[in-house]
Amino acid sequence: MFNSIASKKVYEQVIEQIQYKILNGELKKGDKLLSERELSEQMNVSRTSIREAIRVLETMGVIESRQGEGNFICTNIEKTLIEPLSMIFKLNNGTLEDILELRIILEIEIAKLASKRITSSEVIELKHIIDEMRVETNKKDNNRVLVLLDQKFHSKLATLSKNYLIQSLFMTASKLFDGFIEDAREKIIAEPFNENILLKQHEAIYNAVVENDVELACEKAKEHMDFISKNYRKNEN
Amino acid sequence: MFNSIASKKVYEQVIEQIQYKILNGELKKGDKLLSERELSEQMNVSRTSIREAIRVLETMGVIESRQGEGNFICTNIEKTLIEPLSMIFKLNNGTLEDILELRIILEIEIAKLASKRITSSEVIELKHIIDEMRVETNKKDNNRVLVLLDQKFHSKLATLSKNYLIQSLFMTASKLFDGFIEDAREKIIAEPFNENILLKQHEAIYNAVVENDVELACEKAKEHMDFISKNYRKNEN
Repeated sequence: MFNSIASKKVYEQVIEQIQYKILNGELKKGDKLLSERELSEQMNVSRTSIREAIRVLETMGVIESRQGEGNFICTNIEKTLIEPLSMIFKLNNGTLEDILELRIILEIEIAKLASKRITSSEVIELKHIIDEMRVETNKKDNNRVLVLLDQKFHSKLATLSKNYLIQSLFMTASKLFDGFIEDAREKIIAEPFNENILLKQHEAIYNAVVENDVELACEKAKEHMDFISKNYRKNEN
Repeated sequence: MFNSIASKKVYEQVIEQIQYKILNGELKKGDKLLSERELSEQMNVSRTSIREAIRVLETMGVIESRQGEGNFICTNIEKTLIEPLSMIFKLNNGTLEDILELRIILEIEIAKLASKRITSSEVIELKHIIDEMRVETNKKDNNRVLVLLDQKFHSKLATLSKNYLIQSLFMTASKLFDGFIEDAREKIIAEPFNENILLKQHEAIYNAVVENDVELACEKAKEHMDFISKNYRKNEN
């Protein structure tokens, strides 16, 4: 008996050709793709196949269709990483502990890289966030604002790592994390005294990062993550 | 003037419904989807839209179509993560350094988790790989075999972390890594004495992991990654 030979569908071959041009650098972010008609002529396939391929790449977050303008190469982390990883995670019975383990190492690495790579203008931007946190922590019933500032601080720090791979995975892990326990950050902040502890921890990370003290930054990020983890686990039960 | 309201395409709404059922746990790995006819009836959309949605999810590695059998929920890391992340990475001008930074923290965390979680039957499986490495290292002109054993050792260790999220990201990072410098592992092994150094490093990680010595496992994984990184950087130039 023979094994059946799985033939590649036409639209898959179209996707492969576009992927190939992205991977070898011929297609860059912001580039406009040829029109569907031109693509179908060059590849000698039907426009339906081109359209199918573009739909797939659109859903993957690699192509953006702008009405009346055409198709553009883009990078949409939400679509490319967060949605697929969320599904994979769920289908493999992922637990809160799994996300915590990943998030801890990413946070520590981010603090480390940021403290090596922060520039003086970025110090000022980070300082603004910390100053705002200080002001808002002293107000009452301010949890929603504090949650937003917390997210702002950590995602700013992630960009300061200057490692897009680590930054996008961090964003993905945070999103998975927040989705796991609804309003988890708000619950942690809502507990008495926690908002002050969190402010002190963020200040400590900030100080270490702006002093370019790599080891201290790691240590403070670890302390912060230990505190967060402990609280998340408590809220889970 | 009004802003245009972007209407969601029908196939996107079908994808969302399927994603939702995955995320809330209604659809599990291995489950068979309803037939295209049934789906189109239940969602009250054309079979074309159902087919488009299924193609996208197939390309994303979340659905597998088996001819004559139907569509099944699956997880295909290669399609879901590695391909999209490779494109995102390329589109954001990722460098070898970016991948190294990510791979180092993943390797260390994997060694740490594996040394906590390895079971006695898994010790034997890991020992087989190390034994094979020892035998093959003593043969001449054996680089291809050693590369495969190296990959086998590290991916086995990754599964022993029992954290599917970290394991899949590790596989993704390794793949990106190997794609970056062609035959990089082979080049490193090909250098005189390197195969013996690598054998000793793998043995050291193995020993720490099977003794459940978490700290030593981290230390040995770090030493190994420092050595690998130094050699990769050398090969890049």
